[in-house]
Amino acid sequence: MITTEAGSVGIVETQHFTFAASPDELDLECGLKLGPVTLAYETYGKMNADKSNCILICHALTGDAHAAGFHTPDDPKPGWWDNMIGPGKAFDTSKYFIICSNMIGGCKGSTGPGSTNPDTGKPYALNFPMVTIPDMVNAQKALIDHLGIKQLMCVVGGSMGGMLVLQWAMTYPEMMRMAIPIATSARLSPQAIAFDAVGRQAIMVDPNWNEGNYYGGPVPSSGLSIARMVGHITYLSDKSMHSKFGRNLQDKVTPDYDFVTEFQVESYLNHQGDTFVKRFDANSYLYITKAMDYFDLSQPSGELRKELSRVKSAFLVVSFSSDWLFPSYMSKEIVSALRRNNVDVSYAEIQSDYGHDAFLLEVEALSRLIESFLEYADPMNGHNDDY
Amino acid sequence: MITTEAGSVGIVETQHFTFAASPDELDLECGLKLGPVTLAYETYGKMNADKSNCILICHALTGDAHAAGFHTPDDPKPGWWDNMIGPGKAFDTSKYFIICSNMIGGCKGSTGPGSTNPDTGKPYALNFPMVTIPDMVNAQKALIDHLGIKQLMCVVGGSMGGMLVLQWAMTYPEMMRMAIPIATSARLSPQAIAFDAVGRQAIMVDPNWNEGNYYGGPVPSSGLSIARMVGHITYLSDKSMHSKFGRNLQDKVTPDYDFVTEFQVESYLNHQGDTFVKRFDANSYLYITKAMDYFDLSQPSGELRKELSRVKSAFLVVSFSSDWLFPSYMSKEIVSALRRNNVDVSYAEIQSDYGHDAFLLEVEALSRLIESFLEYADPMNGHNDDY
Repeated sequence: MITTEAGSVGIVETQHFTFAASPDELDLECGLKLGPVTLAYETYGKMNADKSNCILICHALTGDAHAAGFHTPDDPKPGWWDNMIGPGKAFDTSKYFIICSNMIGGCKGSTGPGSTNPDTGKPYALNFPMVTIPDMVNAQKALIDHLGIKQLMCVVGGSMGGMLVLQWAMTYPEMMRMAIPIATSARLSPQAIAFDAVGRQAIMVDPNWNEGNYYGGPVPSSGLSIARMVGHITYLSDKSMHSKFGRNLQDKVTPDYDFVTEFQVESYLNHQGDTFVKRFDANSYLYITKAMDYFDLSQPSGELRKELSRVKSAFLVVSFSSDWLFPSYMSKEIVSALRRNNVDVSYAEIQSDYGHDAFLLEVEALSRLIESFLEYADPMNGHNDDY
Repeated sequence: MITTEAGSVGIVETQHFTFAASPDELDLECGLKLGPVTLAYETYGKMNADKSNCILICHALTGDAHAAGFHTPDDPKPGWWDNMIGPGKAFDTSKYFIICSNMIGGCKGSTGPGSTNPDTGKPYALNFPMVTIPDMVNAQKALIDHLGIKQLMCVVGGSMGGMLVLQWAMTYPEMMRMAIPIATSARLSPQAIAFDAVGRQAIMVDPNWNEGNYYGGPVPSSGLSIARMVGHITYLSDKSMHSKFGRNLQDKVTPDYDFVTEFQVESYLNHQGDTFVKRFDANSYLYITKAMDYFDLSQPSGELRKELSRVKSAFLVVSFSSDWLFPSYMSKEIVSALRRNNVDVSYAEIQSDYGHDAFLLEVEALSRLIESFLEYADPMNGHNDDY
């Protein structure tokens, strides 16, 4: 509701950029081509004259381009990282030009399995080609070119967004000066692949899924809801669940001894599942989790240090102590590989009980780190070994 | 296949004990009654003259009474804890009389939702009353009485079996001299409740579930399979998944870029799900997970130490370093409460990468601990403060 509070970017609008219309389609890692390609994005703040103040924000699995501000004066909720983006905030829109780009494969205004297949005039569904993190980054590169930006000041993102940050630094080392991968990994762990596999299985056994052809009919909401419930367990920590729900029953003290939702934690998960199916496309969930599963920066050599040797940007790597989906050892693996390549890298493990969700919640600690990194570690302002 | 190897109890048979026929039904915690009640059980070794060498083994969520030996000469697999039970093994059948009892609510020969409801002549399905860990223990107590045993030498079990051990020590403190709860907790954590809730949800949205009325028709195998997949992730550790599967693809080196099972870890989980549905009843999965969710020994006072004050047996509490479903802090909570009650308690955290599954796999370390505990800590042989 509040659109004019101090620190808000105010009313914003999602924009769309379309490129790669046939025959100049986007080459994908799987060998297929995709086109036309639309990317949804938002921008906050102003580009400076030499276009040297541009920061690209990459969102997580189910995020979108709406990272800050409000879409309408009555909008009940701001963008997903609003507490980090705005005048005077970590991503200070009075200094920086912020771009938040959606990803291909998604369902938030960018080309994905729910988009119209130009060959058939119908939704792609499972005819949508498999897209990978490198493909998503290549599509974002086209958007950055379109905006006339030769070099990004920084690419930043948490969780899957952090994978895009790492991929950006690998694929386009000259196009960015700084990188902030948060709560992420250079390769998805088998445990995380396993959770993704369960979520996909739940969607694909839902009779409404119908081999992906449910557009225009009932959607596989039971399956998608279960996938989301599993996801949410991995986003919280054992400790945060203890303090948030404990073993409390929902709206009662003694149990009813039935199979209706009873513990508060069950009610929370059910609610998360129910609301998610209204805002996310099940096929996009399949495609994007698969892209995460395939992500492995240590390939093809199998040596992360070797693969990361082409990286040029200064790095701030951040992890959270209670994050068990992307535990700190995964960030340390990145840090160690970068350091052995003599990359300028700062690493911080933020003490937090919030689990993986901490990257959205530990605003104060994260803001302090990011503000000073953006201020003092920019190679354009002279390399600072002491940072 | 091998039935005569050293250390095997050989060919065994599951037995059945039926009690509580109407009107003397079993009183349940939910306020309802159950009867008649059948318990499946097996025994190994010989009861001594004064019946002082009897050990009760309680199995985990999906286990059964068949803990050791083979059912037929051609049986390809022995009982689930065969490496711990037999002549010369930790539970030495040349010294001890071992009883492994199934639980009510299950589907392995004991009364559960798939049993015939005497009021209707049809399977109970969801008319089966909710049963709790205390109810399961009360049913096992009837079996121990039936066997003419006045006092058990020891009650032992891992995971949910450990919950039964704790409940036994609380409800029947005079009826047992020793207790070995392994990889368990005095109350299920909200995180574990959350995983259970996801599994139940997956079963209950499966159209074949049909409000529980699927007996005689197609079973909710998709849902039960997903529940089992989720379960298996929690039984392994991040580290054991790394060493067992890594990020390896199944039967190939380069990905196919499709939604068919691809990573080895996915294939493993699918296999676990597929085989599980052939041996377990979905409604039993609902009832037994719910019993675990309700388990909280700290109630009604909310103080675990106070509730455990009636315990009399000597304890050996065991946890495993990489078990994140029942982490060591949960065992330490039990140990601390017992010590403050001046109970004779030994505690060991076994270093293991196997996660929760370690209670079935760390045979050597577990055997050493259990052998010496059974040998030296039995209060009947004089209390040994130095143990």
